[in-house]
Amino acid sequence: MTAQIERDLAAPADTGLAARYQQVRSTTLDLCRTLGAEDQVIQSMPDVSPTKWHLAHTTWFFEEFILAAHSPGYQRFHRGYAYLFNSYYNGIGRMHPRAQRGLLSRPTVTEINAYRAYVDEHMTDLLGDSGCADALRSLILLGTHHEQQHQELLLMDIKHVFSINPLLPAYHEAAPRQPGEARPLAFIEGETGVVETGCTDAGFCFDNERPRHRSYLQPHALADRLVTNGEYLAFIQDGGYRQPELWLSDGWSTVQQLCWTRPLYWNETLDGEFTLAGLQPLDPAAPVCHVSYYEADAYARWANARLPTETEWERLALRHGCDPNDGNFQDDGHLHPQPASGAAPAQLLGDVWEWTSSAYSGYPGYRPPQGAIGEYNGKFMCNQMVLRGGACVTPRDHIRASYRNFFYPDARWPFTGIRLARDTT
Amino acid sequence: MTAQIERDLAAPADTGLAARYQQVRSTTLDLCRTLGAEDQVIQSMPDVSPTKWHLAHTTWFFEEFILAAHSPGYQRFHRGYAYLFNSYYNGIGRMHPRAQRGLLSRPTVTEINAYRAYVDEHMTDLLGDSGCADALRSLILLGTHHEQQHQELLLMDIKHVFSINPLLPAYHEAAPRQPGEARPLAFIEGETGVVETGCTDAGFCFDNERPRHRSYLQPHALADRLVTNGEYLAFIQDGGYRQPELWLSDGWSTVQQLCWTRPLYWNETLDGEFTLAGLQPLDPAAPVCHVSYYEADAYARWANARLPTETEWERLALRHGCDPNDGNFQDDGHLHPQPASGAAPAQLLGDVWEWTSSAYSGYPGYRPPQGAIGEYNGKFMCNQMVLRGGACVTPRDHIRASYRNFFYPDARWPFTGIRLARDTT
Amino acid sequence: MTAQIERDLAAPADTGLAARYQQVRSTTLDLCRTLGAEDQVIQSMPDVSPTKWHLAHTTWFFEEFILAAHSPGYQRFHRGYAYLFNSYYNGIGRMHPRAQRGLLSRPTVTEINAYRAYVDEHMTDLLGDSGCADALRSLILLGTHHEQQHQELLLMDIKHVFSINPLLPAYHEAAPRQPGEARPLAFIEGETGVVETGCTDAGFCFDNERPRHRSYLQPHALADRLVTNGEYLAFIQDGGYRQPELWLSDGWSTVQQLCWTRPLYWNETLDGEFTLAGLQPLDPAAPVCHVSYYEADAYARWANARLPTETEWERLALRHGCDPNDGNFQDDGHLHPQPASGAAPAQLLGDVWEWTSSAYSGYPGYRPPQGAIGEYNGKFMCNQMVLRGGACVTPRDHIRASYRNFFYPDARWPFTGIRLARDTT
Amino acid sequence: MTAQIERDLAAPADTGLAARYQQVRSTTLDLCRTLGAEDQVIQSMPDVSPTKWHLAHTTWFFEEFILAAHSPGYQRFHRGYAYLFNSYYNGIGRMHPRAQRGLLSRPTVTEINAYRAYVDEHMTDLLGDSGCADALRSLILLGTHHEQQHQELLLMDIKHVFSINPLLPAYHEAAPRQPGEARPLAFIEGETGVVETGCTDAGFCFDNERPRHRSYLQPHALADRLVTNGEYLAFIQDGGYRQPELWLSDGWSTVQQLCWTRPLYWNETLDGEFTLAGLQPLDPAAPVCHVSYYEADAYARWANARLPTETEWERLALRHGCDPNDGNFQDDGHLHPQPASGAAPAQLLGDVWEWTSSAYSGYPGYRPPQGAIGEYNGKFMCNQMVLRGGACVTPRDHIRASYRNFFYPDARWPFTGIRLARDTT
Repeated sequence: MTAQIERDLAAPADTGLAARYQQVRSTTLDLCRTLGAEDQVIQSMPDVSPTKWHLAHTTWFFEEFILAAHSPGYQRFHRGYAYLFNSYYNGIGRMHPRAQRGLLSRPTVTEINAYRAYVDEHMTDLLGDSGCADALRSLILLGTHHEQQHQELLLMDIKHVFSINPLLPAYHEAAPRQPGEARPLAFIEGETGVVETGCTDAGFCFDNERPRHRSYLQPHALADRLVTNGEYLAFIQDGGYRQPELWLSDGWSTVQQLCWTRPLYWNETLDGEFTLAGLQPLDPAAPVCHVSYYEADAYARWANARLPTETEWERLALRHGCDPNDGNFQDDGHLHPQPASGAAPAQLLGDVWEWTSSAYSGYPGYRPPQGAIGEYNGKFMCNQMVLRGGACVTPRDHIRASYRNFFYPDARWPFTGIRLARDTT
Repeated sequence: MTAQIERDLAAPADTGLAARYQQVRSTTLDLCRTLGAEDQVIQSMPDVSPTKWHLAHTTWFFEEFILAAHSPGYQRFHRGYAYLFNSYYNGIGRMHPRAQRGLLSRPTVTEINAYRAYVDEHMTDLLGDSGCADALRSLILLGTHHEQQHQELLLMDIKHVFSINPLLPAYHEAAPRQPGEARPLAFIEGETGVVETGCTDAGFCFDNERPRHRSYLQPHALADRLVTNGEYLAFIQDGGYRQPELWLSDGWSTVQQLCWTRPLYWNETLDGEFTLAGLQPLDPAAPVCHVSYYEADAYARWANARLPTETEWERLALRHGCDPNDGNFQDDGHLHPQPASGAAPAQLLGDVWEWTSSAYSGYPGYRPPQGAIGEYNGKFMCNQMVLRGGACVTPRDHIRASYRNFFYPDARWPFTGIRLARDTT
Repeated sequence: MTAQIERDLAAPADTGLAARYQQVRSTTLDLCRTLGAEDQVIQSMPDVSPTKWHLAHTTWFFEEFILAAHSPGYQRFHRGYAYLFNSYYNGIGRMHPRAQRGLLSRPTVTEINAYRAYVDEHMTDLLGDSGCADALRSLILLGTHHEQQHQELLLMDIKHVFSINPLLPAYHEAAPRQPGEARPLAFIEGETGVVETGCTDAGFCFDNERPRHRSYLQPHALADRLVTNGEYLAFIQDGGYRQPELWLSDGWSTVQQLCWTRPLYWNETLDGEFTLAGLQPLDPAAPVCHVSYYEADAYARWANARLPTETEWERLALRHGCDPNDGNFQDDGHLHPQPASGAAPAQLLGDVWEWTSSAYSGYPGYRPPQGAIGEYNGKFMCNQMVLRGGACVTPRDHIRASYRNFFYPDARWPFTGIRLARDTT
Repeated sequence: MTAQIERDLAAPADTGLAARYQQVRSTTLDLCRTLGAEDQVIQSMPDVSPTKWHLAHTTWFFEEFILAAHSPGYQRFHRGYAYLFNSYYNGIGRMHPRAQRGLLSRPTVTEINAYRAYVDEHMTDLLGDSGCADALRSLILLGTHHEQQHQELLLMDIKHVFSINPLLPAYHEAAPRQPGEARPLAFIEGETGVVETGCTDAGFCFDNERPRHRSYLQPHALADRLVTNGEYLAFIQDGGYRQPELWLSDGWSTVQQLCWTRPLYWNETLDGEFTLAGLQPLDPAAPVCHVSYYEADAYARWANARLPTETEWERLALRHGCDPNDGNFQDDGHLHPQPASGAAPAQLLGDVWEWTSSAYSGYPGYRPPQGAIGEYNGKFMCNQMVLRGGACVTPRDHIRASYRNFFYPDARWPFTGIRLARDTT
């Protein structure tokens, strides 16, 4: 355990950590309550992982980085699992190819649940041990945030799995929503000049949020809410998907090649969208969701606006309270974005991840932690775009203003949406 | 029901049909006894179908061609199933893409078993009805043979599914086999001149075995047993997979592209093979299995021989008793080819399907039945090769001397093997 | 030189051989008269080879199999050419990948013509040498037939090259054709019972036409002319390309995947076709050309007929005179199929290659010649269909009744057409 | 012509423009002097365009944006050329697919040269016209810079074309170079705090260099010369291509998939590289060239350094004279990078394009020009990385400190190299 990791991960690894561990682990299982064994096997595209793979991989993370590394005498549950459930840590060893995760019927769900119980038992012992060092506690805290990320992935993935089944199964039942009207869109003036962003060390954050550093902002303003389904529908009806001049070159190629004509889960008649509660009527007031960066960028151009930079977004979030309690998160059980309400003035946290115009790269002075754990975030700093704010499938206590999510610009299966920005003078 | 189908299918649709129906249907379920729900979902390659798809498709065959067509007032179990479980009958309507069968978690295994029970109940009523016409009984008999074909496919497919899992699960337990020595290979002189082959109308046969017709045979001889693992190993060790001059041009391209160096399920050290009982030591006396046509053809060239034509094979089978009781079939429970024994003089039936040098095409005068059922066999008469004799995963009462199986020349996941032939003068 | 090749190739290698060599070689160059250097470089799809590759490969054939092997002291023109211009003879050594033939600007056309002149000079010396053995003369004769095959390929290939250029260049000028009306279609009864086909040893033939052998024919009849554009248009207008029940399964997949709606070179309005003389009005009386086996088979099914077997075709050709002088060949300069006329009673030779329902395989007792030359025909005996009769781009003295051409069933760039057949009783 | 374009393009459109036009146009033809017609047809990969396509496309640019738009009564040379030679301007209309540029033998080189002469004649008239407005002169100036970009592309592309030919042809002859030793590497401290970068309006620049704007720089230093072949060889010999921990995730996938083990044009024995003068011995003192962003990034990580940002690079260039006369450019005729010399203190301009760690995006406040010309740069602002400094194939009067080139991170056929950077303090 290096000083570097200690510094990076040091955080509220106090008495609450054991409770947090239990809570996160049991929440993951709760999310599978409505799923049959068959549901947990499917990989509907290479980006998607089977539910049972998420259950096992998050467990392997604790086994590999905590128990096997720091718990003397620990016996691994199964010697084949490191190969099967390592995601992308080359520093650990070879791994089962990502695109083939859906070809494995064994271990079964039952066997994986036994694996979870086994690791939980050993983790509980370790967490109860007063000798558990701070650095190790930081690593365990990281493991819980890692599992929360996979809770969101699990929901994104099962939504995609169900969406391609002609029977259109529902993951859960949802209270009927009343279509309303969105409040008028306004712009909030941002700061100009030298600003600071990045992790403030007030709590947990990932390595990619560090170091806190300075940037220079030009005069600009950001929208005070997300773009709605109704607004996006107007873009479609204005021929947005048929006008190359609105699109980035790579975006237009993608539109042509994949025959995109609407957001991922909208139906052909543009009046319904597939949700985790099955096919539902499209609510014009709710934020548009499941659009790629290319679509967000084209929409913004059509609307005579642009997307915000991640610095602009973070500074606005800091000024506007940024209280996760105001947002629509996994804990609320909607699992679907909700119209902007009075509660959260700028709808910055929750609902949908917001595409920024910032390519994902390391902050000035960024260094990944040493060892395999350094592969967590750093090696993805190319070809992806930063998203901010968390979504309705993100756990509430997992988000913060400095949080940087990232996806390739053609990704549409995350819960992604659009906030507009503008240059001002 | 046309006269054409009646003529094609007319057969022992007597009192035994109901019993046969019950037996075939329950055997299919028996084959799934050792499988978990997860196992029944996987499609390990486009050629493979998930177990639960086989369970549903064979049921749909009865529902579509018998109950919905001939049972007035019959209510389909689920209106989405015709789309999901139609395999390739364009005459019926559109169908779920074959390569995506493994992306469906729903309907679950439990739901599909309810579907089977529902259709069985209606079929039992129909079979008990004295008014059930002969033509309809013929069609039901066809349905049972169709299901027996899928029993074999189910076993081929689950073998492939398990084989690509790094945990190498076993489908069943097998009694330990004692490696022995194969009896010396001898050649049996065949008939010369005008001969007759094809369905003799003594029992059920498929449309592609008709009409019985004449061909002209040149002087030739066929091997009196199958090529063994030991013999095939010598071919490999002699550099068989590295000498282009032994291969058909398309075969050599395939070897290069897919990096073939041994039969599908052999291990890298050439001393074990993956079986339905897991990884087992390679028995040099047992027939080589899971080779493509290209490999069979290259082996024959290496051995200064050739593959038999289907006419040569069928005539030999007719002369050599051709009693399925002598062969190693699904019913025997080995589910793996066995060394040639004294029992079956020429090892013609059972163990492995034998590649012939005959391209699969219609016999002179062949006409497929009218309607969608005509798509059963006829539309595949291009680019495939005929195989004869049945395999250790074929039900015993499903085979006969005139039976024509067919696969693309690069197929290796069926239980396929090699019999040599020679020109004589 | 083995006795086997001698026997296979022995033929009229008399004093006329030198003249034939000169004539074939100069005809090849004549065919390039209208082409610029740029035209001779293009490979419009993997199946197509650049003109200059044909010029070099046919020359290499003489250099490799005659001069280097049988002419002591011969110095190769360039040591890199064996790699560049070997087509598929693994027995000779490694070769430049086929699909990359169009990526080579060097050697230039001028350099390749110098190569041709160099080899011609040495070949002329050899042919003038009275000591030139019969076996060698047979091999030279084979080389001239090989070059004639490439003359046809050169024309097929340049037609494809020009067809995909939006400027639609013409290879030559053609006299305007007057659209006429086809004579009514009649059927000619074929022979029944045991018949003989294959090479009669009266002149040159390829190894795949041997040995002469017996087959058994059932009662049948063959059409007395080719299917016309007008007839094929009726098939299209009747929805032929939209009815899966008319197609082989692999054919239907191909139609769907490649979006076929008409023969390869027809325009979208179905009233013109691209020819070597550029875009021309479609003549309803002329034979349909550039259809795949799948289309030929589907058309026949639509017309309540079938395609002939190669044995049926050859026996009819033998009975109907089979004089190449009656047919429309390369020598006539049309380079496009012409309507059936009185001259050739059954339009059997010339115009278009006729798809048969026979898969290409070795005749009973077939053995390829030993050595690399054995790769000429034998290794392609899988997955291809036999075509008979020669086409308007075939040299007249290159064809005979026993000639077996072969292509994959989806090939459309050869000059391929349709003759119907029927079972009779 | 909008005020926007005027503002963007306004520049030294004085009396020198006609001379510049002539010079650029004739230089392009000079670059083709050593090429045969066959050489000018080849497209060796989708990224590469045939030489004759470059000759025609640059001409079309003047025809489309100047003559057809602003020269009343101008008759286009050929009505099919707008389709064939439009590269990517959707605003103009549909275009021939990029990947098929190498499938066109017509128009021939001769025809394209006639096209060039025709357009040159009309352009000369227009340039001589005293009424030619400033905005139009700016557009013509843009056209000359556009053609200079294609001069570089033409050289990059023909190098690739020749490199895949087993005969390894040379484009030109080069004086023999004496392998030397590189001077020791030192680091130059950069500026810290708020800085300005972007076009200074002192001369021509592209729209993507505007507007001039502020950024904030952290303490850092940049290497005082490029990374050499010798240094890169040490990286290879240390197993650089086999250690995933050195690579970005996308980079490692690319290495695995494309089997990269060395820079694009190095030979297998790592002692020679293919150049425009054919295969030459590798000079350890010369800058490494033809590496992708992934390789540049991995090398920097291995060297305990990083790549510079584009702002860091530009500020250093401004401080260090930045005189193109010091650099090795196309005009010098080497067409290959040269070892760092005393002449150019930091080797910032010429030799190779230097990968920066900056993703290519619009500067704050960036707006593309209106109309089709706005597609020139703006629509590519995603997924690509910025490169700075120009290369040995770039015309000397085409470069400046603010010039932003951009390529996808896996591109290796441009003349790309590596400069190291470091965080300080």
